[in-house]
Amino acid sequence: MAPQKLSTLTDYQTLVDKYDTFLFDCDGVIWRGSTAIVNVQATLSMLRNRGKRLIFVTNNSGTSRKDYVTKFAKLGIQASVEEIFSSAYATAVYLSEVARFPSNKKAYVIGGSGIRNELHDVGITTIGEDDTGPVNLATLAEVEPNPDVAAVVFGIDYDITYRKLANAHLNLTLNPGCLFIATNDDRTLPGGKHVYPGTGAMLSTLIHSTQRSPLVMGKPNTPMLDCVMQKYQLDPARSCMVGDRLDTDILFGIKGGLSTLCVLTGVADEAAILDPVAPQATYYISSLGDLCELAAN
Amino acid sequence: MAPQKLSTLTDYQTLVDKYDTFLFDCDGVIWRGSTAIVNVQATLSMLRNRGKRLIFVTNNSGTSRKDYVTKFAKLGIQASVEEIFSSAYATAVYLSEVARFPSNKKAYVIGGSGIRNELHDVGITTIGEDDTGPVNLATLAEVEPNPDVAAVVFGIDYDITYRKLANAHLNLTLNPGCLFIATNDDRTLPGGKHVYPGTGAMLSTLIHSTQRSPLVMGKPNTPMLDCVMQKYQLDPARSCMVGDRLDTDILFGIKGGLSTLCVLTGVADEAAILDPVAPQATYYISSLGDLCELAAN
Repeated sequence: MAPQKLSTLTDYQTLVDKYDTFLFDCDGVIWRGSTAIVNVQATLSMLRNRGKRLIFVTNNSGTSRKDYVTKFAKLGIQASVEEIFSSAYATAVYLSEVARFPSNKKAYVIGGSGIRNELHDVGITTIGEDDTGPVNLATLAEVEPNPDVAAVVFGIDYDITYRKLANAHLNLTLNPGCLFIATNDDRTLPGGKHVYPGTGAMLSTLIHSTQRSPLVMGKPNTPMLDCVMQKYQLDPARSCMVGDRLDTDILFGIKGGLSTLCVLTGVADEAAILDPVAPQATYYISSLGDLCELAAN
Repeated sequence: MAPQKLSTLTDYQTLVDKYDTFLFDCDGVIWRGSTAIVNVQATLSMLRNRGKRLIFVTNNSGTSRKDYVTKFAKLGIQASVEEIFSSAYATAVYLSEVARFPSNKKAYVIGGSGIRNELHDVGITTIGEDDTGPVNLATLAEVEPNPDVAAVVFGIDYDITYRKLANAHLNLTLNPGCLFIATNDDRTLPGGKHVYPGTGAMLSTLIHSTQRSPLVMGKPNTPMLDCVMQKYQLDPARSCMVGDRLDTDILFGIKGGLSTLCVLTGVADEAAILDPVAPQATYYISSLGDLCELAAN
């Protein structure tokens, strides 16, 4: 069925009545860069006033959930840590609750403090941060697998080193059963004027060297959604994923059996949304801010 | 035609008479690690005494040709810089002689001094070495393409940084006509007890982020051989490639229209050599050292 355009008060009312939970991608939906989308604060308040549960889902593993709350506050949006679900947090939930990560084992982390903090919060010891020393062909033999490592966790790491990659490679290839988890596989990373190599690009090194495929938590892959569904005990039939990208956000919702709402304030335009070979959103709307009209009713 | 086993003096004599030039892979053929293959010095002397041209071909881009000469000398083997052809040197030859690299342009190099020195020797200015400073999401916008960069050259770099990768990515995606050259695409790198991520694995990051395919100089790709053939004006019908790996050395020789000799002192064993679906060597022999028997004749 072709995506349904929402443009009238009746459309908005029907949408809000139909779902108990709304999951939101942030960039392109709630904000663009450092500016909030017009009226989005009012829309989120209206949804809260009607008792809806709001969950913000981000592939960004570099920022902690607390930092996200600060970013929301700066934009005039109230949100709590409990409402934010990042790929780093999903990794922690997955390792502790799904993989039942043994307490005597360690995770070798390539990534920033966002991932390390989330893992520490669920009681997982991390190593790898200090593997920044130089190495060369003659000293490479110093780099050994660590038998205590039961998972390699990979996220964006601006302090990547060959030593880290070599350690991760050895743990993945020589430690029996070592898990291989990536926070996300975004090919590029938007950063100011340009795009830069993303987590997915950096990750290619280990996929190629180890010939192993990681479990990728973030959108459009399903493990992060599985974690969200488990944590909040969501009913897919009463949940709607809101996003601006068909190949990540909308596909993510579809894979999880959720309804989906695509907004036009980010990447996708109307032609892309109506393209029959693209992932088919359930609904689309000019802007999440448009729903604020319901607040007056 | 199935590979022909060489095991008698007559076989050896026929081989040596048939070719003017012998090209050698080094590791697994001339040496293993830091030990020369038995009798290989005598074989090489015998070939020199008979007026054969010897060329040593290596994918290693981290070591300069002068350092290679030193390694040969330590193993009791006389060799000259002129006889050594590395993927770093091939890159320099390619850029200067085939691509006619403009003298007012620069090469952005991810790689070690082996590559930089070879490029400097042909008059190419390199940058990138100093891009080791930290970067983060907030400072990423400082990383800009350099319009003077007309080639990104990628080899093994034990001092890899995100900043280098970001710079290379921007030059490759935003500088029109920017060349993308890799010294080799070896998936892994042998280093002591273990194997570690190789140039090809590290290179995956930029291939994935830029969606571009580099020109790969090293074995089993043909550009390095094209450079060898051009430099020495070799007749393929009178040249024989000697190696221990079917999927790199032997395939490299086959692609160049050369005869090939596979030795059993490295990776390939007799079963692999005789596997009809593997690259088919022209000849195989237990060890390059066996040919030294001709010296007494």
